[in-house]
Amino acid sequence: MAARHEEIADALRRAIDREEYTVGARLPAETDLAARYGVSRGTVRQAVAALTAEGLIGSRQGARRVVLASRRSQSFAELRSFAEWARAMGREATGQVVAQQYQPAGHEDAVRLQLPLGTPVLHVLRVRGLDGEPVLLERTVYADWISPAVEPIEPDCPSVTQRLLDDTGLVFAYGEHVIDAVAAGAQDAELLGVRRTSPLLRVRRVTTTHEGRPVEWSDDRYRSDAVSFSVHNSIGNNALARKTAD
Amino acid sequence: MAARHEEIADALRRAIDREEYTVGARLPAETDLAARYGVSRGTVRQAVAALTAEGLIGSRQGARRVVLASRRSQSFAELRSFAEWARAMGREATGQVVAQQYQPAGHEDAVRLQLPLGTPVLHVLRVRGLDGEPVLLERTVYADWISPAVEPIEPDCPSVTQRLLDDTGLVFAYGEHVIDAVAAGAQDAELLGVRRTSPLLRVRRVTTTHEGRPVEWSDDRYRSDAVSFSVHNSIGNNALARKTAD
Repeated sequence: MAARHEEIADALRRAIDREEYTVGARLPAETDLAARYGVSRGTVRQAVAALTAEGLIGSRQGARRVVLASRRSQSFAELRSFAEWARAMGREATGQVVAQQYQPAGHEDAVRLQLPLGTPVLHVLRVRGLDGEPVLLERTVYADWISPAVEPIEPDCPSVTQRLLDDTGLVFAYGEHVIDAVAAGAQDAELLGVRRTSPLLRVRRVTTTHEGRPVEWSDDRYRSDAVSFSVHNSIGNNALARKTAD
Repeated sequence: MAARHEEIADALRRAIDREEYTVGARLPAETDLAARYGVSRGTVRQAVAALTAEGLIGSRQGARRVVLASRRSQSFAELRSFAEWARAMGREATGQVVAQQYQPAGHEDAVRLQLPLGTPVLHVLRVRGLDGEPVLLERTVYADWISPAVEPIEPDCPSVTQRLLDDTGLVFAYGEHVIDAVAAGAQDAELLGVRRTSPLLRVRRVTTTHEGRPVEWSDDRYRSDAVSFSVHNSIGNNALARKTAD
């Protein structure tokens, strides 16, 4: 049975989802939420902390918190796998490998994975789905030292990240992402079920271990009608200093 | 005259720009950089700190730092205006208002700006350029209390953010962004000089004061061939939102 604070977190997620609490608006104060759901403020606080970690709501600004994103938005606040994100939304992540083969590392692979040119690296083309609907096409290249652990994973494994953690103890610790938009190519269109030249959100990323060792790099293309990303940021101390120095 | 560490920062930016240090690869160690540029390690450290603040390079992972982005990439590590970002790249930001008018706040305006429906708010359509080339189309709605300060600004003001700071002391403190991709509509295509249905990177954002009061919300569309965004994050630890003390 779910703990009470998990039930409240879920109720809040659903309320944000059905736009009872709209993106950009403020959540009611803790005391009001406690009264509404008939729980203690401590329980509300735990639930709110979970949603903050998911990037759905912001840190306290004044007395209340701002809703940053609906559940459809994937927050960049933390590095999370697609499967983790789907689970947080209460949706089922699926995966299906379309093609997988070793290739000698080309220039881009070598630079991004910090390997010698020509090192055999595993290329995987994988379609990811939410509740069975294809939303993401991943073209991932794994470093030589992790490829042997990736190769035998069954093609429909829903979370390779989790599997690698279970099997090898590998932790994906840092992510570096470059985001842009591209027109769907023929293969993108076919595998994502969209028209050719449809706009896709592209994320090119390198994921590393805690020590900064690259594990994989990937060209991920998202159906823009199905997924968006959210980012919350704030003005740096530098920015103000820079302004006054000008 | 620029301080020595600023010159080194600039030299590093240019080296990253011409891909001498490639995205995803590591910078040389501080001692090596110090030797190469004939400066002290302290000077290198100051230069590196500037580039870290700009989101070009990551925090130390092991002995060295990873190059996260080239200067074409706009980092989400800090909330920065388009003009600030352009200046950091050594490029000139331009702006041109295409249309500007007061309209009664619709549902979306009211929710995002936390205003009563029907409040008169200023809608501004603005093309932004880098070195004269159009790269961004902003459709911005300003809250009623700041609109009177925005309205008289000259149409080709390169930084409305800076102007509002100078004129009113207003600081844009927090940004909430939702990122996706869209196909260029007729107006987008005309004003950005791209073909209709070209993929554009869309950022919908709400910017607030330190107190969390919404100042503006905007639908920004970037030419994807001209601009990308970079995000660095880590597992369970928020590299993006510099959270205020809770």
